[in-house]
Amino acid sequence: MKQIDLNADLGEGFGPWSLGDDVGMMQVVTSANIACGGHASDPTTMRKTLLLARENGVAVGAHPGFADREGFGRRLIPLTMEEVENLVASQIGALMGMAALVGVPVDYVKPHGMLNNWAAGNREASDAICRAVKAVMGPDAVMLAVSETELEHAARDHGLTACSEIFADRGYTPQGQLVPRGADGAMIHDVQQAVSRLLGFLESGLMPTVGGAPIPLNAQSICIHGDGPNAYETAKSLREALESDGVTIRAFGGGRT
Amino acid sequence: MKQIDLNADLGEGFGPWSLGDDVGMMQVVTSANIACGGHASDPTTMRKTLLLARENGVAVGAHPGFADREGFGRRLIPLTMEEVENLVASQIGALMGMAALVGVPVDYVKPHGMLNNWAAGNREASDAICRAVKAVMGPDAVMLAVSETELEHAARDHGLTACSEIFADRGYTPQGQLVPRGADGAMIHDVQQAVSRLLGFLESGLMPTVGGAPIPLNAQSICIHGDGPNAYETAKSLREALESDGVTIRAFGGGRT
Amino acid sequence: MKQIDLNADLGEGFGPWSLGDDVGMMQVVTSANIACGGHASDPTTMRKTLLLARENGVAVGAHPGFADREGFGRRLIPLTMEEVENLVASQIGALMGMAALVGVPVDYVKPHGMLNNWAAGNREASDAICRAVKAVMGPDAVMLAVSETELEHAARDHGLTACSEIFADRGYTPQGQLVPRGADGAMIHDVQQAVSRLLGFLESGLMPTVGGAPIPLNAQSICIHGDGPNAYETAKSLREALESDGVTIRAFGGGRT
Amino acid sequence: MKQIDLNADLGEGFGPWSLGDDVGMMQVVTSANIACGGHASDPTTMRKTLLLARENGVAVGAHPGFADREGFGRRLIPLTMEEVENLVASQIGALMGMAALVGVPVDYVKPHGMLNNWAAGNREASDAICRAVKAVMGPDAVMLAVSETELEHAARDHGLTACSEIFADRGYTPQGQLVPRGADGAMIHDVQQAVSRLLGFLESGLMPTVGGAPIPLNAQSICIHGDGPNAYETAKSLREALESDGVTIRAFGGGRT
Repeated sequence: MKQIDLNADLGEGFGPWSLGDDVGMMQVVTSANIACGGHASDPTTMRKTLLLARENGVAVGAHPGFADREGFGRRLIPLTMEEVENLVASQIGALMGMAALVGVPVDYVKPHGMLNNWAAGNREASDAICRAVKAVMGPDAVMLAVSETELEHAARDHGLTACSEIFADRGYTPQGQLVPRGADGAMIHDVQQAVSRLLGFLESGLMPTVGGAPIPLNAQSICIHGDGPNAYETAKSLREALESDGVTIRAFGGGRT
Repeated sequence: MKQIDLNADLGEGFGPWSLGDDVGMMQVVTSANIACGGHASDPTTMRKTLLLARENGVAVGAHPGFADREGFGRRLIPLTMEEVENLVASQIGALMGMAALVGVPVDYVKPHGMLNNWAAGNREASDAICRAVKAVMGPDAVMLAVSETELEHAARDHGLTACSEIFADRGYTPQGQLVPRGADGAMIHDVQQAVSRLLGFLESGLMPTVGGAPIPLNAQSICIHGDGPNAYETAKSLREALESDGVTIRAFGGGRT
Repeated sequence: MKQIDLNADLGEGFGPWSLGDDVGMMQVVTSANIACGGHASDPTTMRKTLLLARENGVAVGAHPGFADREGFGRRLIPLTMEEVENLVASQIGALMGMAALVGVPVDYVKPHGMLNNWAAGNREASDAICRAVKAVMGPDAVMLAVSETELEHAARDHGLTACSEIFADRGYTPQGQLVPRGADGAMIHDVQQAVSRLLGFLESGLMPTVGGAPIPLNAQSICIHGDGPNAYETAKSLREALESDGVTIRAFGGGRT
Repeated sequence: MKQIDLNADLGEGFGPWSLGDDVGMMQVVTSANIACGGHASDPTTMRKTLLLARENGVAVGAHPGFADREGFGRRLIPLTMEEVENLVASQIGALMGMAALVGVPVDYVKPHGMLNNWAAGNREASDAICRAVKAVMGPDAVMLAVSETELEHAARDHGLTACSEIFADRGYTPQGQLVPRGADGAMIHDVQQAVSRLLGFLESGLMPTVGGAPIPLNAQSICIHGDGPNAYETAKSLREALESDGVTIRAFGGGRT
């Protein structure tokens, strides 16, 4: 039986501002990476997003990022490893506080934007993130990492449960890395093409690559994007196409649908 | 055996800025109300302060306040009761995240500045604070409240453990309220006078008042101030004077000294 | 010849977030109240908005507000009068810096949200705002104020040029005040009704009231709203209806169209 | 007649926090680099600092920095060149607004911390800063730059008046650069040694170097530090020593003493 999770970054508004269609996306995804007040969000936005996740039976991930709202966590802020620990621990803590207030469990952690990109290729930063996650959420914590990154390896080495994600709309190199944006084959704009790649991968465990043979990847989740002009429609089409082909869409934690 | 706790607001720096002499004060108090990133502090400042508390065997209180660093939490920000819950839950959560990271328990909660003043006279705000504390820290949580305030009453009604504090340097009305700043007898500037009042209170349970008979007050802690020009010396003198008169200075939780 | 200005609050995004359809609204209004980094905006958002105003020949107003992005300047922050001066002077200065950078003049000032509401009924706050405006923009500065408010009176008394605005979608009391939101007649939801009221006013100088006779109002501008689901379409219909009835839509400064 | 200016970074508090002894330092320096709300300060702190400068007849410099209070402008935030322009223009504008409010002229600009370090070695960033300064302050603006840096060269090429500063407490390489912190000879801790080097330089125009012959440097100002444990005493000793040797301490603008 083919089964996969769909995750997206949600709850990324701030004060009067919103970003993307959280109400729609929550009906499509099975896991929501919820901003923790660093790159986006505030206590009231966290609450609203957590309640939306609960209403839709969506698993909750803490989504810590650089504390840089103006740059939306997409700029590298040069932190020490101790500061990375502090950033992650305090942001996960804030979301856990809000989650306790509304009675929703926090199921996993996925770093945001540039923090995630940095960790993907930097073992020290990944170790710092893992130390914070383990200290705050305990040794059974789940890390959602991009497949084949330093963060995924670090999570395993720290004894955490590592779940891996692939991207619905990105091409891969024969080494299992994402084709850099701007290069040929980096983006897969056509939903049908994206779906057929994903179906092939779910059956065979092999992902096509640009300029090489298909490669085996490990993945429990597909990352989709919650912003952009047609994010909801694209996400919905993707989910429906997968389901009509017999794929069960289910949170990787397994406890929710 | 006479016994009391000494508490002060600490860890109220931010980024490059510090406030008061945390290193000195941590050697005097038995309970530290530690700012949570709302009116003051940031993850790195929290960490430093938590470690300082641990080194000195000082109990840790979460000290949430209005998220208004420029006003240092001393201005009333008109929040809804749901926003009060969110503020308190997220700030306690952030400190608990940092406390988990460095392996220090969070022992109690004391609201900061105007949030505390507001709650003192407003049952709705006190209820909102208590709901957040109970949800995040559980039903065994301890609230440190000014003696005879709505917050103290609310904490009891919510099933929390309420501990009460009195002020070393403030006069009381016959109704058990603080004499308003500016009025005669509001401030007790002389340390010896402050000590003799406190010793009298610790023996009799009765506090002198301005313009009336002494009144019974309930108190497990004495609040002292960590900023101001001679805060450390004053605090040290107060502690030494109390100890030389046979008072044991011990955290109200009892578990620490 | 009937002539009026149309103004709206624009440039109220922040970092990755936007609010309303600035591109559309800039094609409709003749004056843009541009956020200055207090309740909304940041340097890059200011630049983008100023350039959009220039492209569309729209007059630029500085739109200072309480420095409270999370509350979008809609909460009363209890400032001293000196702090009000500082808030307004620094925010106007920031926008003037950006306007100088892109070569656009700043034509007037209109306070935002709760700062505007507060000033409308509070002469002291209005005086503080006027002192700041006069000091920073000089004695020829123009203040755009709600008709018949303390701010309008204060601006005149400080020797500033006061321009008055009325609201397209709000009802008036016989005393010339806005009918409070929630009361009967507070909101005029129908565009045609709004237009016919405005046309009547532009011909006669008299505005209908709820429960009384029409009253004379002074107005050089009509305030329309840039957010809300159909803001652009509503604004466009309003402008077209006014123009088709022979009203010239022109910035109150007169220098632009 | 030997003459030089003394400058220091001042007004670098925020909300309830202060940094260094501004009251003392203002009696020693002739030019104050005043924080503009980016890396430090807020409108009320700017006002207080500007008034202090006026009381002491001290020239005022706008001191823009990365908008990162938590990192105090000492971390490199990766901005585009357009964002550098926006940062500088809006911060200078904010200080000019405050300066207009209290009736004090802004005499020059000196970038802060990492922004200054970055510009020192990066011509593009220097150009962006110069474009903003020229647009906001006009073609007669004065830039205070570290001697022999890209910023100094850029300021001249943009037609601005470039004034150069040297450091009282830092060693120089034979190429005219600062000896990197941590290397031998980087810091000059002894005030008498610092003074004798400065006196020699003021007489000969030649600065000693580490490992080479003295080199000619251009300098209208000496940068001293306003924070640190004995900043005021050190600065005062330095000024007194220079004056007792016949050096006139005067703002480089010349208009003030």
